[in-house]
Amino acid sequence: MQKITLLIHCKDQKGIIAAVTSFIANLAGNITYIDQHVDRELNVFFMRLEFEISNLEIAFEVIKGDFEQNIASEFGMKWEMYNQDLKPRMALFVSKYDHCLFDILGRYSAGELNVEIPLIVSNHNDLRTIADRFDIPFHYVPFTKDSKEEGEKMQLELLERFQINFIVLARYMQIVTPKIIEKYTNKIINIHHSFLPAFQGAKPYHAAFKRGVKIIGATSHYVTEELDEGPIIEQDITRVSHIHSVEDFIMKGRDLERIVLARAIKLHAQRKTMVYNNRTVVFS
Amino acid sequence: MQKITLLIHCKDQKGIIAAVTSFIANLAGNITYIDQHVDRELNVFFMRLEFEISNLEIAFEVIKGDFEQNIASEFGMKWEMYNQDLKPRMALFVSKYDHCLFDILGRYSAGELNVEIPLIVSNHNDLRTIADRFDIPFHYVPFTKDSKEEGEKMQLELLERFQINFIVLARYMQIVTPKIIEKYTNKIINIHHSFLPAFQGAKPYHAAFKRGVKIIGATSHYVTEELDEGPIIEQDITRVSHIHSVEDFIMKGRDLERIVLARAIKLHAQRKTMVYNNRTVVFS
Amino acid sequence: MQKITLLIHCKDQKGIIAAVTSFIANLAGNITYIDQHVDRELNVFFMRLEFEISNLEIAFEVIKGDFEQNIASEFGMKWEMYNQDLKPRMALFVSKYDHCLFDILGRYSAGELNVEIPLIVSNHNDLRTIADRFDIPFHYVPFTKDSKEEGEKMQLELLERFQINFIVLARYMQIVTPKIIEKYTNKIINIHHSFLPAFQGAKPYHAAFKRGVKIIGATSHYVTEELDEGPIIEQDITRVSHIHSVEDFIMKGRDLERIVLARAIKLHAQRKTMVYNNRTVVFS
Amino acid sequence: MQKITLLIHCKDQKGIIAAVTSFIANLAGNITYIDQHVDRELNVFFMRLEFEISNLEIAFEVIKGDFEQNIASEFGMKWEMYNQDLKPRMALFVSKYDHCLFDILGRYSAGELNVEIPLIVSNHNDLRTIADRFDIPFHYVPFTKDSKEEGEKMQLELLERFQINFIVLARYMQIVTPKIIEKYTNKIINIHHSFLPAFQGAKPYHAAFKRGVKIIGATSHYVTEELDEGPIIEQDITRVSHIHSVEDFIMKGRDLERIVLARAIKLHAQRKTMVYNNRTVVFS
Repeated sequence: MQKITLLIHCKDQKGIIAAVTSFIANLAGNITYIDQHVDRELNVFFMRLEFEISNLEIAFEVIKGDFEQNIASEFGMKWEMYNQDLKPRMALFVSKYDHCLFDILGRYSAGELNVEIPLIVSNHNDLRTIADRFDIPFHYVPFTKDSKEEGEKMQLELLERFQINFIVLARYMQIVTPKIIEKYTNKIINIHHSFLPAFQGAKPYHAAFKRGVKIIGATSHYVTEELDEGPIIEQDITRVSHIHSVEDFIMKGRDLERIVLARAIKLHAQRKTMVYNNRTVVFS
Repeated sequence: MQKITLLIHCKDQKGIIAAVTSFIANLAGNITYIDQHVDRELNVFFMRLEFEISNLEIAFEVIKGDFEQNIASEFGMKWEMYNQDLKPRMALFVSKYDHCLFDILGRYSAGELNVEIPLIVSNHNDLRTIADRFDIPFHYVPFTKDSKEEGEKMQLELLERFQINFIVLARYMQIVTPKIIEKYTNKIINIHHSFLPAFQGAKPYHAAFKRGVKIIGATSHYVTEELDEGPIIEQDITRVSHIHSVEDFIMKGRDLERIVLARAIKLHAQRKTMVYNNRTVVFS
Repeated sequence: MQKITLLIHCKDQKGIIAAVTSFIANLAGNITYIDQHVDRELNVFFMRLEFEISNLEIAFEVIKGDFEQNIASEFGMKWEMYNQDLKPRMALFVSKYDHCLFDILGRYSAGELNVEIPLIVSNHNDLRTIADRFDIPFHYVPFTKDSKEEGEKMQLELLERFQINFIVLARYMQIVTPKIIEKYTNKIINIHHSFLPAFQGAKPYHAAFKRGVKIIGATSHYVTEELDEGPIIEQDITRVSHIHSVEDFIMKGRDLERIVLARAIKLHAQRKTMVYNNRTVVFS
Repeated sequence: MQKITLLIHCKDQKGIIAAVTSFIANLAGNITYIDQHVDRELNVFFMRLEFEISNLEIAFEVIKGDFEQNIASEFGMKWEMYNQDLKPRMALFVSKYDHCLFDILGRYSAGELNVEIPLIVSNHNDLRTIADRFDIPFHYVPFTKDSKEEGEKMQLELLERFQINFIVLARYMQIVTPKIIEKYTNKIINIHHSFLPAFQGAKPYHAAFKRGVKIIGATSHYVTEELDEGPIIEQDITRVSHIHSVEDFIMKGRDLERIVLARAIKLHAQRKTMVYNNRTVVFS
């Protein structure tokens, strides 16, 4: 059985659903999931399908070629097709904060994440012991302001060598360089410790405390060149009150960061997200 | 039985709780609620008490005088004392949006709000019929950019004539003038249709939609001269997704606005809020 | 322009989506909304569509006839088709509690509910003045244990006379008789003041308080003969703690009841709910 | 500096607060936290204090003796006093589920939990490798229906040998024996994978799915002899819909279980919970 996920977006036109479902029917495929969305403002059509093909003799690459030739080109589609048996390969970028790293590696070990994690990259050595505990190779890539280019080169080399599909910044605390962002467009997930767009930039819990908010949040988003301005994947919040100090905000926030980042990783790994016009379509 | 609410704040010092509770004990009073908070950063002590005195011969004004002389002056307290039998008198300022007005008047009629509503003030006549339905006097105070001063004068006159204790801007859509803000410091409650400090100013739902957030919110706050920057009383949120249009945001937001404003009114009317350093202490 | 909503469910089979969308294409219709769901356990297919037909000469009844003959009969569908211009007619059943009534009538007057409310029915006269304020005819149908049958007859007569499509029990506090339930299957919406299935039956807030829960809830559901066992439409919750008394639970619960019932009314009125196997499919 | 936490409950009487705060004043102590609660229905007074004493020559045991003699005995108090420097010692009981174990050990390693974890006890060997990763001694205590008594004896011996203060059942899936419950009254924390009291007993996610709920929950509570009936410490919920299968419920529930159990452990470890009449007072 070949299990396939298909993501499509294109200008909204008549006949798209019929064409795509017919294509799958012609392969004697069985659609197990179908959802679509039309952005009426921008007139863009989005679709996500999962289907199964029992005939193993039809090569996956052939299916892709046929789809491009017979369907996608006709409708001017941008599309991606995935073999569900191939787990996406995820790189973890960390710095000194350990709570998101523990959470992700715990979930990974418990079999909860549909990914491979071939490496952890860090500009500090602090979290190496955690990587060791979970038997994940840890790569120390230090850099200073002056050696950023060299660091970027090493990072790119690692990403390539380990055939990384997407990157997760688990409280990485560093700005990813434009070259990496360009190469991994909509494939780098960051967790920001505020309810974006409120409290962009550094020290959001301190800013939230100062403003006297009654609710704090966390936001996972794809990284773009504009800091904290990328497409939002998921957000969540928790209540605070006058009795809570900045330290309480930070501690409560850790739980938000963990859960909001984990949800984003799951959504991305299951190919449930699409990006358009700096917004996400998140199929459920 | 005299039922009294007492709010205090002052520099944190030893012996405050003992002094205040002794004062009440000397009146043969029975404390039915006591809560306090210390802002350790600013070293400020806050306390809220409710107590009952069965002796009706001790005049409320005498109790207040004694408290000032014997307790408050010693500790340098700022304090307020309220006879619970006297409901605070609340003015509603509205413009054209009716959903918050309906909600407040419905709750008021159902006996859910511990207030008197002697008047509704509006710069438009649109909502007069709603006021009529609930038998609340409706005062039409129109003004243009050029007649703002005259409008302010009429508003102030109404507020004074009806002995108003606090003002609720139920989607009033106008900026309250500095003179009124000064006279009703921490006594004007606004509802802003976003999760402040995100999306200050006009059209927050449109801005939230454009940013692609996954959660929208509403915020009730005391009005200060800085627009949307006053002390936050209450916030709440609801989830949105790519399937929701700006119109959906607005419709979902109406429920948030209703509930967040109603909660703020209740908290203020029960004297459960204190303001310090542009933040609120909200006793529960 | 004819705006039409179509709800379908049937055994899951190949070709349903294609058949339905082709049917609409043949009418030169434009699909503005399409969502489907497959219950894989029970192998049942659900679909909801909205579409527009600019040709006003094709009578709505003819479309329905064609759909039955050409599509529905082939797939063994159960289906409903609605002209969106015809608002569903809703009867409100109330007793003595006024908060849900105020909320619904406020929303109705504010144009937020896509319904007509031709009458309010009550076994008490207490809420007549509220009905009067909103100019809704109020019908007093009293009954005792012994005159239940007579009361039921009067209710049925009113429902028929006013061509009621669905009934909302706004804290009605009475058990609806089996004959009415049978006639309005999946068309009677109740609000239960607990997080069902916890705390079924009377006095749920008291039971929740006694159990020491940290969260209370409310549940809107379609009424079936089994008390509090019908298909759930919507639920929501709020936090409580040891500081809250039963009275606090009740007051906090009022807001839950209001909002959860209002959401259910909106979903039903927009034909976004389908019932199968005592569960609901709720299209968003 | 001695940092001390004091928990008190007794019949509500006049003068308690004054007596306790004077006692601390006489030790030249500085109160850093004070909160109290009165259960007006049962007339019981609860208080929690944190205070600091700079004089290290006053032995902790002497303070306790004095408090009993001078204060507690007078008011008939039940009380506990803790030296904050001594972390409570927590035993983890697990079976085969690993997600809560990973979460707790991750938090423990990240320094987020104010506890010592000297041992993990399990009736299966499956999770030994996880314990090894985090360097926590793992004790395999197998038992069958016939050897329950022997298992209990081994468990009790371990608890005593490792001077365990409280036990956490991290999805332990076994019923704790009455003898252990009696010895660790209000000191055994369980996580139940439903919104209690809904769906008690086995397979709650399956039952919730069958009932068609729109919200699922998790509940942490102290274990009593009545299964799933003990005092609730914390609950939380998440939304589900018709698109979610039982497996989705289970996966979403894992996050709830993790977070609700972690919160309960933190509250207990910080001595913020008190139990009375099968309910908890949870100081924040």
